[in-house]
Amino acid sequence: MTEQLRPDGSLRHLLTLESLSRAQIERLLDRSQTYVRPLGERPPRSTALAGLTVANLFTEPSTRTRVSFELAAKRLGAEVVNLEVQLSSRVKGESMLDTVYTLQALHVDALVIRDAEAGVPGLVAGHVAAHVSVLSAGEAHVAHPTQGLLDALTIYQRKQRFAGLAVAIVGDIRHSRVARSAWHALRALGVTDLRLVAPAALMPAAEEFEGCARVRSIAKGIEGVDVVMMLRIQKERFGDADVPDGDKYFAAWGLTPERLALARPGAIVMHPQPMNRGVEIASLVADGPQSVIRDQVRNGVAVRMAVLAEVLGTRGGA
Amino acid sequence: MTEQLRPDGSLRHLLTLESLSRAQIERLLDRSQTYVRPLGERPPRSTALAGLTVANLFTEPSTRTRVSFELAAKRLGAEVVNLEVQLSSRVKGESMLDTVYTLQALHVDALVIRDAEAGVPGLVAGHVAAHVSVLSAGEAHVAHPTQGLLDALTIYQRKQRFAGLAVAIVGDIRHSRVARSAWHALRALGVTDLRLVAPAALMPAAEEFEGCARVRSIAKGIEGVDVVMMLRIQKERFGDADVPDGDKYFAAWGLTPERLALARPGAIVMHPQPMNRGVEIASLVADGPQSVIRDQVRNGVAVRMAVLAEVLGTRGGA
Amino acid sequence: MTEQLRPDGSLRHLLTLESLSRAQIERLLDRSQTYVRPLGERPPRSTALAGLTVANLFTEPSTRTRVSFELAAKRLGAEVVNLEVQLSSRVKGESMLDTVYTLQALHVDALVIRDAEAGVPGLVAGHVAAHVSVLSAGEAHVAHPTQGLLDALTIYQRKQRFAGLAVAIVGDIRHSRVARSAWHALRALGVTDLRLVAPAALMPAAEEFEGCARVRSIAKGIEGVDVVMMLRIQKERFGDADVPDGDKYFAAWGLTPERLALARPGAIVMHPQPMNRGVEIASLVADGPQSVIRDQVRNGVAVRMAVLAEVLGTRGGA
Repeated sequence: MTEQLRPDGSLRHLLTLESLSRAQIERLLDRSQTYVRPLGERPPRSTALAGLTVANLFTEPSTRTRVSFELAAKRLGAEVVNLEVQLSSRVKGESMLDTVYTLQALHVDALVIRDAEAGVPGLVAGHVAAHVSVLSAGEAHVAHPTQGLLDALTIYQRKQRFAGLAVAIVGDIRHSRVARSAWHALRALGVTDLRLVAPAALMPAAEEFEGCARVRSIAKGIEGVDVVMMLRIQKERFGDADVPDGDKYFAAWGLTPERLALARPGAIVMHPQPMNRGVEIASLVADGPQSVIRDQVRNGVAVRMAVLAEVLGTRGGA
Repeated sequence: MTEQLRPDGSLRHLLTLESLSRAQIERLLDRSQTYVRPLGERPPRSTALAGLTVANLFTEPSTRTRVSFELAAKRLGAEVVNLEVQLSSRVKGESMLDTVYTLQALHVDALVIRDAEAGVPGLVAGHVAAHVSVLSAGEAHVAHPTQGLLDALTIYQRKQRFAGLAVAIVGDIRHSRVARSAWHALRALGVTDLRLVAPAALMPAAEEFEGCARVRSIAKGIEGVDVVMMLRIQKERFGDADVPDGDKYFAAWGLTPERLALARPGAIVMHPQPMNRGVEIASLVADGPQSVIRDQVRNGVAVRMAVLAEVLGTRGGA
Repeated sequence: MTEQLRPDGSLRHLLTLESLSRAQIERLLDRSQTYVRPLGERPPRSTALAGLTVANLFTEPSTRTRVSFELAAKRLGAEVVNLEVQLSSRVKGESMLDTVYTLQALHVDALVIRDAEAGVPGLVAGHVAAHVSVLSAGEAHVAHPTQGLLDALTIYQRKQRFAGLAVAIVGDIRHSRVARSAWHALRALGVTDLRLVAPAALMPAAEEFEGCARVRSIAKGIEGVDVVMMLRIQKERFGDADVPDGDKYFAAWGLTPERLALARPGAIVMHPQPMNRGVEIASLVADGPQSVIRDQVRNGVAVRMAVLAEVLGTRGGA
């Protein structure tokens, strides 16, 4: 496991939330909150990262996450370059490292890496020079740490606490980096009633998600919760014994207004997007008064600004 | 129909020229002219849109139009992000709106949208928050309003008037958003002799292009005109009874020096590009002294600066 | 051959190093050196090109070279637009020129062109307006002038001289623009012992590379040299009588520590990247103490800054 902290305890890389302390996560959330502005107001801008260069290195397409990181870096004054690279699988690790060494030699200061294969962000972090930071923008099914932070920030903005909250994560948990990072964040922040709600085929392995309850009925799973975190269902899952097609999945597992009514009054609904409307979530819910899905997006750019400022902080400045 | 104007009468969106008054179009042309510089001189630059963010959201590729909008926004000091998205057709409207809501939550102030399907820019404009503007960069066969403005500006620069001009639009009018937006602009600006010159297969439906003469011979169509607006012929049209292959089309409908000699002396030749040289236009004409095709490009970035400044004007500023 | 110099002798385009004098190349290397910073230090930044626009026009993908030019231009204060265009082969020259005229009309000041077909950068340079500069970022097998300069700069940094050096270029020389530009640069700079080391199938035509020795054994070819320039072997070459598959090629032609030991002590190893590790070069060598491959990358952005500053120099300025 690559160490994420510098010897002085400051954050150097962000690959996973798993090893971060509650204090470290809270510090990032506090810093993120300073970058949040209401819709329609100007986003904050600074020159904190002027003279620094951030590279977005994505090997699987994710336009929204790339744009979120790109705007976060630009609004702090950094130069941004975008690379979408296809690496042949046989020599992928080598090619990735050679690309990273190239970017490092071009005086890139932070690498934002998205990759469908587990281990790649850590591999890169283990090989870059001491002044370079690596941020995961999504690693296979393993981790999506800025998503975990933005989810936690969104919950805190609405509930003003973590202790005592009941949170249901619903859908394809087994393959979800979003679920894993949310679990790391919320557990560290003191959420004790965290429920995994999914059909058997989408439930993670028994030894994962320590401390979570597992519920195989959406009605039971969201009963009385404060937060419903929906996940995207991948169409390639359909056809499993437990995962029928879109309409049938919706009938059994989709979040409808009726099902949402089983949650606590004022419960919030989250989704990492992109949504399959009419599959895992009804549009009436996605666009309804309890949805905080657009807050999540807004918080995402604030979280990425905070993380960039945190890891590059002492190096930037006009 | 989405309203393009704010309650105070100022321009909020630009989706079509159809509903704009002569005074509104003239105001945009005047403002555009202030951004025009001769080739070789520096383009104007300002910080009028500093702190604002413009997203180019293109679902069909159009490198030139994207670059024109990108440079227009950057030269006014805005941040620009480019997104090329492929949306599956079944859920296209939903996916487009979710993408737009995401961009809006990322504090994007203007969305420049190019889409092959009719109705998409209007759909988006009908759903964005009050402070967000939508600009069409080409909508199916329906509208390409900045192209219509740059065509009008190009004509005015050379002829110093619209009244009394004879203008021929030649080629695939039926499928052309360029022709429709030119028609809207020129009609509003007082052009009364506007001729549609095309074979039957490429002529628009009878109820369209009110007030235009229809001519099925290029020789007759351009006789005595001041302006010849050529359109791109799509290769997929070849094979229609009336649209033979490239060489035969050129023989029947291509703009040659001989045919151009039928126009009024000093007539100008326009083309929205990309050109099929040797199909709808001879290179001798495209590169000849009467061609203003490169002026159109230069005017395009000026028009896009004017439109961005107009719709975002009161929100920008360093 | 398009003239690269202005009437006053200053550099206008950079398409090839072939016609440059030793003094001109030395001037570019000196200027490049002023932009070199050690890894971990900030790259230099200036506003020398503020208000100017650089377009990267690539018709074959090359993420690394594109990013290198992009960062070079941005760190000098220029606006940068990236275009990756696919041009159909039948009308490629015409389409390329129309794209170039469009960019010129958008007030682009320098065009960086990468193309798989010989002659395209020169064609473009022969048609742009007097104030526009064209830089080749790689032309077929013909030339890659900024690569030639960065190779020369890298050698000079380590050896502090060119006279008396022995240099081996190893691998697919026949198809290599890198080899041709290195040859132009090193010959002009006074390298007299320049060896082409390759199997027969990858050796260039007899009339090419005047003044170079040809060696068909890697052991003999690198014996006693100061510099080993490895080239990328294209997988599509495998299957030639003289070019067996990757493992066999490595056995016969790969640069291993044992073979490198035949060079002079302190010899440096170069590679233009991307590398096929285990095909033309062993990882132990690529990552070893004699490798200067990452220096080449760092020098590449410095060279591109110098060339941009040189060709646009008198036009820029905030």
